[in-house]
Amino acid sequence: MAATTMKASFPLLMLLGIAFLASFCVSSRSDQENPFIFESNQFQTLFENENGHIRLLQKFDQRSKIFENLQNYRLLEYKSKPHTIFLPQYTDADFILVVLSGKAILTVLKPNDRNSFNIERGDTIKLPVGTIAYLVNRDDDEDLRVLDLAIPVNRPGQLQSFLLSGNQNQQSILSGFSKNILEASFNTDYEEIEKILLEEHEKETQHRRSLRDKRQQSQEEAVIVKLSKGQIEELSKNAKSSSKKSVSSESKPFNLRSRKPIYSNKFGKFYEITPEENSQLQDLDIFVNSVEIKEGSLLLPHYNSRAIVIVTVKEGRGDFELVAQRNENQQGKRKEDDEEEKNEEDETNKQVQNYKAKLSPGDVFVIPASHPVAVKASSNLHLLGFGINAENNQRNFLAGKEDNVISQIQRPVKELTFPGSVQEIDKLLENQKQSYFANAQPQQREIGSPETENRLSSILNAF
Amino acid sequence: MAATTMKASFPLLMLLGIAFLASFCVSSRSDQENPFIFESNQFQTLFENENGHIRLLQKFDQRSKIFENLQNYRLLEYKSKPHTIFLPQYTDADFILVVLSGKAILTVLKPNDRNSFNIERGDTIKLPVGTIAYLVNRDDDEDLRVLDLAIPVNRPGQLQSFLLSGNQNQQSILSGFSKNILEASFNTDYEEIEKILLEEHEKETQHRRSLRDKRQQSQEEAVIVKLSKGQIEELSKNAKSSSKKSVSSESKPFNLRSRKPIYSNKFGKFYEITPEENSQLQDLDIFVNSVEIKEGSLLLPHYNSRAIVIVTVKEGRGDFELVAQRNENQQGKRKEDDEEEKNEEDETNKQVQNYKAKLSPGDVFVIPASHPVAVKASSNLHLLGFGINAENNQRNFLAGKEDNVISQIQRPVKELTFPGSVQEIDKLLENQKQSYFANAQPQQREIGSPETENRLSSILNAF
Amino acid sequence: MAATTMKASFPLLMLLGIAFLASFCVSSRSDQENPFIFESNQFQTLFENENGHIRLLQKFDQRSKIFENLQNYRLLEYKSKPHTIFLPQYTDADFILVVLSGKAILTVLKPNDRNSFNIERGDTIKLPVGTIAYLVNRDDDEDLRVLDLAIPVNRPGQLQSFLLSGNQNQQSILSGFSKNILEASFNTDYEEIEKILLEEHEKETQHRRSLRDKRQQSQEEAVIVKLSKGQIEELSKNAKSSSKKSVSSESKPFNLRSRKPIYSNKFGKFYEITPEENSQLQDLDIFVNSVEIKEGSLLLPHYNSRAIVIVTVKEGRGDFELVAQRNENQQGKRKEDDEEEKNEEDETNKQVQNYKAKLSPGDVFVIPASHPVAVKASSNLHLLGFGINAENNQRNFLAGKEDNVISQIQRPVKELTFPGSVQEIDKLLENQKQSYFANAQPQQREIGSPETENRLSSILNAF
Repeated sequence: MAATTMKASFPLLMLLGIAFLASFCVSSRSDQENPFIFESNQFQTLFENENGHIRLLQKFDQRSKIFENLQNYRLLEYKSKPHTIFLPQYTDADFILVVLSGKAILTVLKPNDRNSFNIERGDTIKLPVGTIAYLVNRDDDEDLRVLDLAIPVNRPGQLQSFLLSGNQNQQSILSGFSKNILEASFNTDYEEIEKILLEEHEKETQHRRSLRDKRQQSQEEAVIVKLSKGQIEELSKNAKSSSKKSVSSESKPFNLRSRKPIYSNKFGKFYEITPEENSQLQDLDIFVNSVEIKEGSLLLPHYNSRAIVIVTVKEGRGDFELVAQRNENQQGKRKEDDEEEKNEEDETNKQVQNYKAKLSPGDVFVIPASHPVAVKASSNLHLLGFGINAENNQRNFLAGKEDNVISQIQRPVKELTFPGSVQEIDKLLENQKQSYFANAQPQQREIGSPETENRLSSILNAF
Repeated sequence: MAATTMKASFPLLMLLGIAFLASFCVSSRSDQENPFIFESNQFQTLFENENGHIRLLQKFDQRSKIFENLQNYRLLEYKSKPHTIFLPQYTDADFILVVLSGKAILTVLKPNDRNSFNIERGDTIKLPVGTIAYLVNRDDDEDLRVLDLAIPVNRPGQLQSFLLSGNQNQQSILSGFSKNILEASFNTDYEEIEKILLEEHEKETQHRRSLRDKRQQSQEEAVIVKLSKGQIEELSKNAKSSSKKSVSSESKPFNLRSRKPIYSNKFGKFYEITPEENSQLQDLDIFVNSVEIKEGSLLLPHYNSRAIVIVTVKEGRGDFELVAQRNENQQGKRKEDDEEEKNEEDETNKQVQNYKAKLSPGDVFVIPASHPVAVKASSNLHLLGFGINAENNQRNFLAGKEDNVISQIQRPVKELTFPGSVQEIDKLLENQKQSYFANAQPQQREIGSPETENRLSSILNAF
Repeated sequence: MAATTMKASFPLLMLLGIAFLASFCVSSRSDQENPFIFESNQFQTLFENENGHIRLLQKFDQRSKIFENLQNYRLLEYKSKPHTIFLPQYTDADFILVVLSGKAILTVLKPNDRNSFNIERGDTIKLPVGTIAYLVNRDDDEDLRVLDLAIPVNRPGQLQSFLLSGNQNQQSILSGFSKNILEASFNTDYEEIEKILLEEHEKETQHRRSLRDKRQQSQEEAVIVKLSKGQIEELSKNAKSSSKKSVSSESKPFNLRSRKPIYSNKFGKFYEITPEENSQLQDLDIFVNSVEIKEGSLLLPHYNSRAIVIVTVKEGRGDFELVAQRNENQQGKRKEDDEEEKNEEDETNKQVQNYKAKLSPGDVFVIPASHPVAVKASSNLHLLGFGINAENNQRNFLAGKEDNVISQIQRPVKELTFPGSVQEIDKLLENQKQSYFANAQPQQREIGSPETENRLSSILNAF
């Protein structure tokens, strides 16, 4: 009897142990993290060899439930050495491709046509789902860096890529058909097809088995390969340049800097192309922007009314602050991870919370719609943003001279909204002469300025 | 040994006990309820003080899985006393705002502009996500009551509101930025900013801690505050009235009664504005309607082909009947709560079920698409409806003279569909001379009417 | 004490036993299946009597997580004997209805109008959600077979149908209203309404109870009933024919073969109507196609860039091959069934996998977007396809003369992509003279052809 009980209670202890570990993991995972920032180590390497790599950022909604509406958006980073090619392939996702740095030839295939484009920094193009393309780094010295926003069509947030070339890690899609079908399709004997279009199959499998623990080497063989100078010249021949004048071509690349910045002063520049302006961005309802903040400058506090913006740090360092709401009780954060409790979230007791992060090249941050944000540059800082739900988005500033919604509040309401008097409020709002971008370390205000006087008088009043 | 076993079995008993309680809760929660009606107590108070309140209806899909497609729609009710203002704020949701009663000034801010509107009963306006607005009850006597349909953009069914004014319950969004960022943004010392734009921070926190158990008092302080007569006059100055003629302005309020009713007779009136008619309603694909049923009258049985309608009782009392399908087996209702079993739902054995509810002011009911419904007024009954999936919706009546689909059935098919003869069916369908609305207690039909004769003959035939 | 422990451990053993069984079921369910094919037995019979049946295919996403984006699409098959009618009813789903075989009269009711259409093989029409319709098999000999794609509006993937006629299995929607409401609505005594419009209620319930175990018989009574020759003639009177010329009517049926095939040769024909061409298909973003592959022929390997295609085998037999990716590790397939692990799916190590299936009449297969597929006919094979996400879909062939994307690859890239030389590759691609459809068993290639020579030389080289 006691023995029987023993058998039962042993697995039970294990069961309870697992439950304990699980709950422990959940609470530590979300322990005081800033869910809005994704550091470089949150990219997963999909492919890497001596010629370059492809990396995929973790799923936004896997990081936090607050990104539930981003579940069908993925961010990819592609990098390759000079004189290399990313071989022909396609994906079951729509892509928006932006060149971060370097010079490339992008070739896009259609059933009865082919287009090659010379693209470089800031050039942007939509590759519709299923489009076969290949990408050459045509520069002699500079690495090519490309950022892709991918919107999968088959399963939310899941990408599949299909290669025409086979390699030891992933076979060509042609090798996915049976001998039978291939012989009839190409009206050719299988041995011939295998020799000319497919990798040698049998050998490869043996190969792979023996190489299973040496993945690094085997990966060197394909996907991104070297090109000779002659090959690059041949591929360059008919390549067109991106349209510098129009931002609204149906299928040509367009450049983010082809139009003048929407906000610009000596502290920074803000370029943006919206779905209203560009037909390629229209169905996907996405804007693309490029922001340059000068060292020691600040992108003033503002919010995007409707767009959720995914921002990548292209170059430079800085600081990012975001204002969000958080449930006041301690369990607030844990709740986010718990699907069951989602519906029962306490909606009455939310607190304003400051989320800060240091920014380094390669970092990604997400700004939910309507959430106030400010960015400070500690060195020249270049950001690239994709805005989801872009149509009719409005950017409202909370400081600065122009587009500042606070200054639109009527006088009697200002007084009720803020503790100061109308005169004090209006005077304070006028202190910032800049719009959009400003000095992040304003000079010491001169002795005797009205503010200092106020301060002095308030100190005096304290006695 | 026995002691070890004891340790194990004790938590086990607890575990089983919890499982038992959980299953008990599930079955009692769904115990013979009518899931289509939401009573006043299913609103949660988000804010309340002596000047008014804001209340949020529970999530539709939390109530029942049958409302899965309403997961991103929320209903809010706002009420305020005469001479008060709801201070500037915005939300991460698109809003459709309808005035149920009272007279207000609504001010909507844009980055470089401001619009104020005098609005009253029946006035409707879309506030796009992220729009800063404030709302004044300008009447001397009457409370202001506003109903909002909210469609959140960041997370399905979850709202966040952002206040410009700080109070002890929720801080101003400005206080969410660091001292550093605020000083640079406003080009002003922090003490100054704190004094003029923010609540006194340190003190407040202490304050809040000590007031944690006296929430009622602390909530009285802000969000909805009193206005002097002079302030109201100043705010009224440039306020425009809602457009009485056109229902299709891009951003001005429009009135539900600005056009003649789509159905009207001595028993009731039915006003409706559709997305085809009004550009503000177009992207959201929503119609808004207002229905008045006279005491003792009936809105005849009908269904909306495509729209799911969320109806609020504005005034009066009545009865609501809805026809839906239900699985015949006893476990049918419990299944609705069980995500796992959702996919295995038995689709072969569904029964027609009558769902009834008494209607009182403030109640909300949901009519799924294609579900037949009828509403009877025991006193003058005013309803306000928001229709989701409004475009191309068609309202088919099942009784009455006009728009009655049953009378469109061809003669040979009528006979096969119903037990009576074609003559009997046609005669019966002609008894109702009214369309859309009718008398809910029709007078006793006269002795010797054809129907009574038929009845007599059928009784005679039985012998 | 030991007795107490016993009580606890007994249910524990059961609990663990259930957990064990559950995990066993999961692994066996997905054991080496081809998730892309749905055989006839995966249809569930919703209704069946001597006059015909209605069958519903299992939910796509219930079969496999890979069909998550098809969760709101259902496939229905309807079959009836000559001289029968499917009585008036409507559903809470948009329908695309296609006649597979037979001749019918479809009558569609509107509140103030009625339209009857003579429809036959290949005729297609959209029935918007909530549309009351009835369907007559007007032929003297042939069964009527209709395929419907349904897109529900109330709950993802769940259909409800509403009958105007009552029967012992499902009551008329009219009987779902109370006596009270019915009397007022029809301005008639309830006994009269019951006798003429409803089944005799009390009796029926008793009846049903006693018949609960004899469902087959009770189902024979209604929904699909016999019609006399005279009744069919009367119903035929004002029936219009489907539009043979235009494929773009707002509400009339159109025929898939009314336009010339998009691909055609002696091995097969491919008809397709896209949302760009037909306004009925536009909001639903669906294409409909009809493919005829001659006995012994092959639809060449190709993929749909954007559309997910649901294909039904109308007639004939054949073989289907699809190329998809699969995680390399053994647990790959089990993962698909496990919601929790979905987000953690390993995206680095996917392998190309061949999925084969034998096709018989009534089978359904699903081709995800961008997945290569080929179909071989062992007898004349007729397929009917519904394409989801149809707008801007592009069909790229991987073999054949026309629309073959592989032949668009530039020469230097060809060499890097495939093991053969450019000359070998180009020669091989020219062997297939056909486009789209080809011979599935090409004749033995002549001795001395270039391919055979190559083969000989490679054999010789081996020595």
